[in-house]
Amino acid sequence: MVTSYPPCRGHGPTSMNALEIITKKRDGIVLSKDEIEFFIQGLMSGDIPDYQAAAWLMAVYLQGMNTEETSHLTYAMARSGHMLDVGSIAPLAVDKHSTGGVGDKTTLVVAPLAVSAGLSVAKISGRGLGFTGGTLDKLESFAGFTTDLSASRFLDNLSKHRIVVAGQTPDLVPADGKLYALRDVTATVGSYPLIASSIMSKKLAVGANAIVFDVKVGRGAFMKSEQQGRELAIIMIDLAASLGKRATAVLSDMNQPLGLAVGNALEVREAMDTLRGGGPSDFTSHCLTIGVQMLLLTGQAENERQARSRLEELLASGQALDRFRDLITAQGGDPLPIDDPGLLPQAPVTRRMTSLQGGYISQLDAMVVGLTALDLGAGRKKKGEPVDHAVGVVLHKKIGDRVKRGEELCTIHARTDSAARKAETSLLEAYALQEHAVDPPPLVYQVVS
Amino acid sequence: MVTSYPPCRGHGPTSMNALEIITKKRDGIVLSKDEIEFFIQGLMSGDIPDYQAAAWLMAVYLQGMNTEETSHLTYAMARSGHMLDVGSIAPLAVDKHSTGGVGDKTTLVVAPLAVSAGLSVAKISGRGLGFTGGTLDKLESFAGFTTDLSASRFLDNLSKHRIVVAGQTPDLVPADGKLYALRDVTATVGSYPLIASSIMSKKLAVGANAIVFDVKVGRGAFMKSEQQGRELAIIMIDLAASLGKRATAVLSDMNQPLGLAVGNALEVREAMDTLRGGGPSDFTSHCLTIGVQMLLLTGQAENERQARSRLEELLASGQALDRFRDLITAQGGDPLPIDDPGLLPQAPVTRRMTSLQGGYISQLDAMVVGLTALDLGAGRKKKGEPVDHAVGVVLHKKIGDRVKRGEELCTIHARTDSAARKAETSLLEAYALQEHAVDPPPLVYQVVS
Repeated sequence: MVTSYPPCRGHGPTSMNALEIITKKRDGIVLSKDEIEFFIQGLMSGDIPDYQAAAWLMAVYLQGMNTEETSHLTYAMARSGHMLDVGSIAPLAVDKHSTGGVGDKTTLVVAPLAVSAGLSVAKISGRGLGFTGGTLDKLESFAGFTTDLSASRFLDNLSKHRIVVAGQTPDLVPADGKLYALRDVTATVGSYPLIASSIMSKKLAVGANAIVFDVKVGRGAFMKSEQQGRELAIIMIDLAASLGKRATAVLSDMNQPLGLAVGNALEVREAMDTLRGGGPSDFTSHCLTIGVQMLLLTGQAENERQARSRLEELLASGQALDRFRDLITAQGGDPLPIDDPGLLPQAPVTRRMTSLQGGYISQLDAMVVGLTALDLGAGRKKKGEPVDHAVGVVLHKKIGDRVKRGEELCTIHARTDSAARKAETSLLEAYALQEHAVDPPPLVYQVVS
Repeated sequence: MVTSYPPCRGHGPTSMNALEIITKKRDGIVLSKDEIEFFIQGLMSGDIPDYQAAAWLMAVYLQGMNTEETSHLTYAMARSGHMLDVGSIAPLAVDKHSTGGVGDKTTLVVAPLAVSAGLSVAKISGRGLGFTGGTLDKLESFAGFTTDLSASRFLDNLSKHRIVVAGQTPDLVPADGKLYALRDVTATVGSYPLIASSIMSKKLAVGANAIVFDVKVGRGAFMKSEQQGRELAIIMIDLAASLGKRATAVLSDMNQPLGLAVGNALEVREAMDTLRGGGPSDFTSHCLTIGVQMLLLTGQAENERQARSRLEELLASGQALDRFRDLITAQGGDPLPIDDPGLLPQAPVTRRMTSLQGGYISQLDAMVVGLTALDLGAGRKKKGEPVDHAVGVVLHKKIGDRVKRGEELCTIHARTDSAARKAETSLLEAYALQEHAVDPPPLVYQVVS
């Protein structure tokens, strides 16, 4: 039984064909702009079948791509769909991108904070998958909030409020959707040039000129080591530069969850506390770090100290929270929970987990906490599944904190008793205690620019 | 537009899945027997889609496979279809396999020669593709000759005549057909473990226990350098050993065509001349080299000299030619052309190509000659195309020979005048002459065992 596969139809300016392009990348040869465009166009038109794209992706994974190739790929992907010209409406548009973690509600604070400082934020965000949460899911804790915006509403909101957080639409970088789906089933998700071009193609399509990358590093992140995070950060910054964008990357810790709350509405509540100046100190500090880089990148502050004190003022004065209110109402959300957080979705069962021994917390595994929240229903195992906005975990202690025997470690917010009990069992794996004092891990390892 | 690809269904003894197996090979990890079998079975059942197989093939190409993995792959492929138990019928079954070249009609001589020496040959052969010819096409120069044999006719012919040369059937190693078709369009044909397992899975399915590999090296071969040829030869021999088979590899020259005739019926005629003891000296010598290794591998001769003199006797006595006659008649071919070669298909046009200058031939590019024969119609550009048995090229001079200006270099056998003229133009590229004497290239570089 010899199955016959159609070779790729050769067309375009030269007699290029997919097999040649796969062969070159297989042999570690640098691909030209034309070759990369031919491949992406062929993939989208269906002229290049999935099995050729899959072989090419594996060759890219193993042989890599230099900055120029990654830049061509990013352009080709961005041009596969509609591109929004944000620059003319919002000259000071700034963006941030996190590589994903547990309890990472940074956008909810930093976007309105930056807007309150005079910048614009036009952001395409994602949904949670697996152990990581997604900004869109968190925002949908507000009844009526929509992330499905037409291009005209996107631009309209941006020009009126200088803040938009929307989901990816089918006509925005469709090549990324197609390539990502294929990477997901061919073990090629982890390729740095493919990660970088996927992220940047979306930034290119919505047009922000200054971007802060929040590269998460640790147990609850895709990058397990600082070295890996730094490698990706450098690729991202070089790529941004080659695309004419200013960028800074912050390598931040994701060994333990960021802040105290993990779960959609729980994180929204913590974000609002932070916007009022009463958030957890680690999360507040992280938001200020990202915000400071945004102001510096856009020339809105002369130095870090100046930037930081301005942002602190904007939190204290309630101006940042007002911009958060703009975001919620402009996208159809009910703003009442902003003033009365008790109106946010609440889980019927709460269960306090106490420590079986005394000591200092030396480990609080973000991955375990993330997977527990996922099992509670806060996240999704497969794309398209619904999430439960109410459930999750609120930590009371973090690494370095001292606990007594019987003291509360965290509170589990669950749909049922049995789910809460199951979560408690799995959370036991997250903690390690020791007798002697432990230093908390650094929040930020490095700022790369 | 996020296309969603179904992940591979996990089933089987453990919770293995295709993504894990791709990931391992991507990371250079040695795959287990179970993993390789799971992958091949999944590919054949359709549980593993082509795009996952394509990514895996590229990972295998770039990360390689050790002998054990290649051996597991070979077994898994062989077991994807019907397996013939040749051993009980033909305990002294021997096989040869050429990696393909131009003018390589060795099987036509060596198979009957080995049979005349008391061995059995149960051979699955291939068809020509591109610049290389195929044994089946050559044999089909005999009217009525069929290569499409049922398993029972295959075994019956083998037990009666000790010689069968058949084509691959759909139920014989179907995994090889499917994998090869996919390799062909994903730039993964050239992987040595994949080449080796493809060849050996077919040997395993028909069961010969002793195999001589004829690894062609040079301009008209897939392996351009002796180093590459040696590398493949070692992989093949190690693989054969791991499968419990005895094997020897002969690294032979394919810079210029083997013998003088290139083209189906033209090569049959040359093979019959050789079986009568009147063939070109280089081709005769090559056949004896392969035949000697067959006798040594099966313990039918004590040393090379003894083996060679026995084979020379079998050619001289006409016994080898008698076994050739058995082969042709047992598979339905008209044997009359054996005694009257003029009855073989003949081209309507012959054109003598003469030298424009005098000198010594220093180059006679096998690839150019092969492509010229292909253009004349002797080969096929795509699988499934018919071939013209009559056309081709007969060389009169080879590397090292002296030619005078105006002396004949070769004769072109063509369907039309214009085809013959076109062939002459393209053949000009094949030749290089020089003033000083040139040594002919060695016929055999190395015997690896």
